[in-house]
Amino acid sequence: MPRPDFRTPRLFLESPLAAGATVALDRSQANYLGNVLRLGTNDEVLVFNGRDGEWRAAISGSRRADALAIQAQTRPQQAAADISYVFAPLKHARLDYMAQKAVEMGASRLMPVSTRHTQVSRVNTDRMRANVIEAAEQCGILTIAPVDEPVTLQGFLDQRNPDRLLVFCDEDADMADPIAALNRQTGAVKHGIDVLIGPEGGFAPEERDSLLRQPHLVRLSLGPRILRADTAAVAALALVQAALAEHVASEQSQPDNAN
Amino acid sequence: MPRPDFRTPRLFLESPLAAGATVALDRSQANYLGNVLRLGTNDEVLVFNGRDGEWRAAISGSRRADALAIQAQTRPQQAAADISYVFAPLKHARLDYMAQKAVEMGASRLMPVSTRHTQVSRVNTDRMRANVIEAAEQCGILTIAPVDEPVTLQGFLDQRNPDRLLVFCDEDADMADPIAALNRQTGAVKHGIDVLIGPEGGFAPEERDSLLRQPHLVRLSLGPRILRADTAAVAALALVQAALAEHVASEQSQPDNAN
Repeated sequence: MPRPDFRTPRLFLESPLAAGATVALDRSQANYLGNVLRLGTNDEVLVFNGRDGEWRAAISGSRRADALAIQAQTRPQQAAADISYVFAPLKHARLDYMAQKAVEMGASRLMPVSTRHTQVSRVNTDRMRANVIEAAEQCGILTIAPVDEPVTLQGFLDQRNPDRLLVFCDEDADMADPIAALNRQTGAVKHGIDVLIGPEGGFAPEERDSLLRQPHLVRLSLGPRILRADTAAVAALALVQAALAEHVASEQSQPDNAN
Repeated sequence: MPRPDFRTPRLFLESPLAAGATVALDRSQANYLGNVLRLGTNDEVLVFNGRDGEWRAAISGSRRADALAIQAQTRPQQAAADISYVFAPLKHARLDYMAQKAVEMGASRLMPVSTRHTQVSRVNTDRMRANVIEAAEQCGILTIAPVDEPVTLQGFLDQRNPDRLLVFCDEDADMADPIAALNRQTGAVKHGIDVLIGPEGGFAPEERDSLLRQPHLVRLSLGPRILRADTAAVAALALVQAALAEHVASEQSQPDNAN
């Protein structure tokens, strides 16, 4: 697999990408390349659209950064590991940060759920999608994780595929060996993984009861310290990636999860 | 061990803490309790000073939040696991965030090092200490991690205790099984652990050479994605805590590291 290039600027585009194609840039993209990065005609960038892999492109156009000439593919499209990040939304800047971090840590889908103790009632999913794209651009990720519209925790539990592994980050879980708890599940992840981080106020008792009745459940301890939700997201995804990444199915093998 | 209480506000104080003591609050502490948290006379808070454990205290004073009456100890002081977080500093807000996250993940000492590709030359260590205290207050941590003055990477390598385990988060490390790489070191952590996160531009070749010559070295892969430095800090500390926390020495057993 070619090693990602992280020094060349990367830009997400909606357009199909193929050798010889020319893609017009919208005003914000042109502004970013021309005025923020100070690039001009013939300078190189990397582009991706979430479907066609990563391509080298050169800035073209009579005025600066009008368009991109797509040149050669630098990395093929790869299926993302099927790891959904299920979370109680936070406010504003911390939600931006949490969405970026989840993508950075390899979450392939973001699923906000409201709980009894969730402090945020409305979620700006468009803003979350912009954060997903920004993180993918910065971190060399070639797929764009979809952001679901928020549902209640019970709604999520009712509609999820019960064959998927549910990793429930539970401050009351046994701390003894979180890695061993995950390692026992290597056979259970062929339908993908849902990693659930609760609200900072914790789950209500009846919510905990519903969660603990789920099949294929791992209660994961993140240690004796209480973590902020954005920190817990990174820590939990780091453990899941380290223990299970090589066993988890990729999204493409899960047509029921491709929307 | 008593379970930490995370609903009552927690405040770091410099004063000695003992049953029956009265501690005067400075203006910013009084403002925080009175105006930010809207607490008044007889309301309860938890306090700690990094030495005497955690205590329940009641707001006293004729005007609001003038002083605290220290009542009973809620948790004894505990030695922190001896895990130093060694890092190339970032700019401003991201450095604040990184310091908070490292403390939240249980780092017991913060050691900024400058490298060839470090983007930041001056580090405001007072501001980092304020972030350490804020994270400890929020996350129920009873020790205040010292923040060292910055040194060069070579200076750090020259002065460190070579018996300590060095966990080097290396994007070129073998990705196969980071947990197994850490688990092989359970016997080697009795002198503590240094977790090193490099600059986002990577280490220079001669820096890598120096690092790779260190004894008791683990090169840790954090996966195929390139992470921002603050994300890498949380991910690396999560893996180190999960794999090694029960084996690592506590700070108190390491007098050479107690300054």
